[in-house]
Amino acid sequence: MCMSQGLEGVVAAETAISMVDGQRGELIIRGYSVEELAPNATFEETVDILGIGDLLAGERELQPIAYEVLSAAAQRKDDPMDALRAAAGIPSASLRAGGGAPLTTFPTIVAAYWRLMHHQQPIVPRADLSHAANYLYMLDGNVPSPERVRGLDTYLNTVVDHGLNASTFTARVITSTGSDLVSAIVGAVGALKGLLHGGAPGPALDMVFEIGEASRAEAFLRRKLEAGEKLMGFGHRVYKVRDPRADVLGAAAERLLGGDPLYDLAKSVEQTAIRLLEEYKPGRRLQTNVEFYTALLLHGLGLETPLFTPTFAVSRVAGWIAHCIEQRRAGRLIRPQSIYVGEVERRALSPPNQEAG
Amino acid sequence: MCMSQGLEGVVAAETAISMVDGQRGELIIRGYSVEELAPNATFEETVDILGIGDLLAGERELQPIAYEVLSAAAQRKDDPMDALRAAAGIPSASLRAGGGAPLTTFPTIVAAYWRLMHHQQPIVPRADLSHAANYLYMLDGNVPSPERVRGLDTYLNTVVDHGLNASTFTARVITSTGSDLVSAIVGAVGALKGLLHGGAPGPALDMVFEIGEASRAEAFLRRKLEAGEKLMGFGHRVYKVRDPRADVLGAAAERLLGGDPLYDLAKSVEQTAIRLLEEYKPGRRLQTNVEFYTALLLHGLGLETPLFTPTFAVSRVAGWIAHCIEQRRAGRLIRPQSIYVGEVERRALSPPNQEAG
Repeated sequence: MCMSQGLEGVVAAETAISMVDGQRGELIIRGYSVEELAPNATFEETVDILGIGDLLAGERELQPIAYEVLSAAAQRKDDPMDALRAAAGIPSASLRAGGGAPLTTFPTIVAAYWRLMHHQQPIVPRADLSHAANYLYMLDGNVPSPERVRGLDTYLNTVVDHGLNASTFTARVITSTGSDLVSAIVGAVGALKGLLHGGAPGPALDMVFEIGEASRAEAFLRRKLEAGEKLMGFGHRVYKVRDPRADVLGAAAERLLGGDPLYDLAKSVEQTAIRLLEEYKPGRRLQTNVEFYTALLLHGLGLETPLFTPTFAVSRVAGWIAHCIEQRRAGRLIRPQSIYVGEVERRALSPPNQEAG
Repeated sequence: MCMSQGLEGVVAAETAISMVDGQRGELIIRGYSVEELAPNATFEETVDILGIGDLLAGERELQPIAYEVLSAAAQRKDDPMDALRAAAGIPSASLRAGGGAPLTTFPTIVAAYWRLMHHQQPIVPRADLSHAANYLYMLDGNVPSPERVRGLDTYLNTVVDHGLNASTFTARVITSTGSDLVSAIVGAVGALKGLLHGGAPGPALDMVFEIGEASRAEAFLRRKLEAGEKLMGFGHRVYKVRDPRADVLGAAAERLLGGDPLYDLAKSVEQTAIRLLEEYKPGRRLQTNVEFYTALLLHGLGLETPLFTPTFAVSRVAGWIAHCIEQRRAGRLIRPQSIYVGEVERRALSPPNQEAG
């Protein structure tokens, strides 16, 4: 018997998809280091490396009912992740034929919802553009430059898989009951939405904007640390050293934003934050995490903050699908146990007429 | 470090909601044994005992877009669990005001979809009927007899919660990221759909129908066991003795169906099956599980087989909500680890022009 409320230190699966070495700061995806894979491959190549390249042939267009669901969500001003979850739960025609609908339709859902939120017509996906280029195109109607496509490909490759994170684990638990792919993906979207998982890349950038210029960074960050607040964008449950994804995304941000004052400001904020974290929390070795440079890179690509977590999902859905296929092969129901800490006496029920009172 | 691919023997949560003692065949729900609670309480009382009785005041009616989603699903002939998952993902007006929409809308969704599947108009829910009575009313438009309502209340109470089963665990994992209740419930519906979890009460009844008369039971069951087939409705991963829920549901089925030849046939099939299982798998102590009498009781209530798993969800959603609230209080991200069994060499990527081939 083994007890761990957050399942820390519990191995719940074998996987050949990715290896996260938190002590050494390494992320390997099917034999490729993230530093090698992310800046060099297209997202299509990465998906192929994950073993699900054939799913890219699926339909990018949504069913009419999915657009109706997104329109209703826009009227309610739903969070984009709620809209994605709702539309993702509507199986497309291609899925029913065994295709990889979530992989090919996620960019369409996110871009369509973004436009509906802003009272604009969704843009029909183009089959002649790459996955990343088509996503950017559907957001604003302009075919993106090769530099922006390269930047987005690098982002998508960097976050495509990361061991048994909470959303991937959710997808595997659902799959382990014998349920279907759409059910697993919809559950995973719901988990990714949480602030402790994928739901918080915005605040790291907000902090940089709030600081405004490099000379104000130290005083601002000291105030936060003195008040016992966390610094968004720093520290990770698994990585005890620098998150390798931060470097990859930082380099991509530099290529895209080099010379832009925002990039210099962010670098300066980062350096100051790391120095002060060592001063206030010595030995904890808190380092820049993936959120900090995600925010900078996606902002540099022209995406607004509410699109950050849905764009994370556009990438991670490929990892989820690969894990679902792997889990289906492993084929064991994931069903932990609980310890009962409630009452154990066998109380008699009150007579119904009293109970109703 | 602890390794368990199915998380068997791993305690992932403390809970005060229910205790499952698989060795002694006991199920306690907030201090009440299932034998005491299920046949005596109304579902409203059980929900109140779970600590979420205030959520019963929520709206039973669906939003117009939910009916559109169900209509589109009916045209695609979607599985009722897929339709439930899709409609459950559309937050209702009352949920946005903090109410317990999944609890009050699940019967409406399931009944509306059932009617749409059969080209009938959904029936508007009635606020003057109890939860169970309103569900039966929305299925066929007739206010049910007190005996049918009592039978359904007993079923709903019996399966309302059961420790950290896979769907409840899914709901807790999603909640643990800081995500919302609808995301957790939608994920749980997807997990419940799986054949290894909630998706298989139909086949137990199908087997009884196939046997047809008691005199044929032994030959039929022997043939199955000789062929190495499992007997649906017998055996459970947690219970090593008789599942206490089987007795409760069996007694309810007897009250409802007493004197009906189907009930006598089912009893006879059960007795023969247990005797033969002891003969073919000595020492395994395979006993009747909850599915066997679920099927018999729900059939006796007039529900057809495709409604069995959605009706399970109509009950279990109360347990899911109680667990989500408990998990939110416990507040620890559930994130296990994986062991990487794939390639570790840092391969260089092929040049892009070769990779594209």
